Amino acid sequence: MEALGRHVLLELRSCNPASLDDLPLLEGMMLRAAEETGATVIGKIFHQFSPQGVTGVVAIAESHLCIHTWPEFSYAAVDIFTCGENFDPTEAARLIIAGLESSDAQLTEIDRGVDIVPVATPV
Amino acid sequence: MEALGRHVLLELRSCNPASLDDLPLLEGMMLRAAEETGATVIGKIFHQFSPQGVTGVVAIAESHLCIHTWPEFSYAAVDIFTCGENFDPTEAARLIIAGLESSDAQLTEIDRGVDIVPVATPV
Repeated sequence: MEALGRHVLLELRSCNPASLDDLPLLEGMMLRAAEETGATVIGKIFHQFSPQGVTGVVAIAESHLCIHTWPEFSYAAVDIFTCGENFDPTEAARLIIAGLESSDAQLTEIDRGVDIVPVATPV
Repeated sequence: MEALGRHVLLELRSCNPASLDDLPLLEGMMLRAAEETGATVIGKIFHQFSPQGVTGVVAIAESHLCIHTWPEFSYAAVDIFTCGENFDPTEAARLIIAGLESSDAQLTEIDRGVDIVPVATPV
């Protein structure tokens, strides 16, 4: 079975709630998770909500990383989509879990674009 | 069962391959999918790959929409993450499926942050 992409979904409970409301910390952590594991960042958007919570999306040449935080629940939803062999989404996931000090993390990996047949095969 | 977010994953096969390599078309489609279904756009990043393919991420006040395309396979991977009641991800999904003329679309909805308990309950 071949897949075009790997999509990792992280359910991060019991995080450090202060970190979940700290935009500069989250932005630095997400960029490091991308760059230290071999991704090439092509853009980012981070937004602080009132009274609390942060949304961050990082576009990478290998696809994307996104985070949405609920400090009031010590919870963050993260997803990491990658294609190609250069970037390991589970390694990025480990850096994010550690960065948020989550003591109750669930990782689900979903293959995307499985066994896709080319539109036209060269003759 | 209560969830903080709804995460819709779209596997879009048999799309119009020309559309999948048309950055302005994809950017307009994704922004319309957000705005016409009640989301508030807070930022966007779209990137054209060489020789083909586009990555787009749209950050919204209700979370995000992302698309990654493989024109050579007539395939696109989309995900739409929403929180709150104002924005229906399945309606946005329908607009994207129609926009890409996918004749083989698979939608998977995953609840995120299910039955989360607040960190501190008011007394």
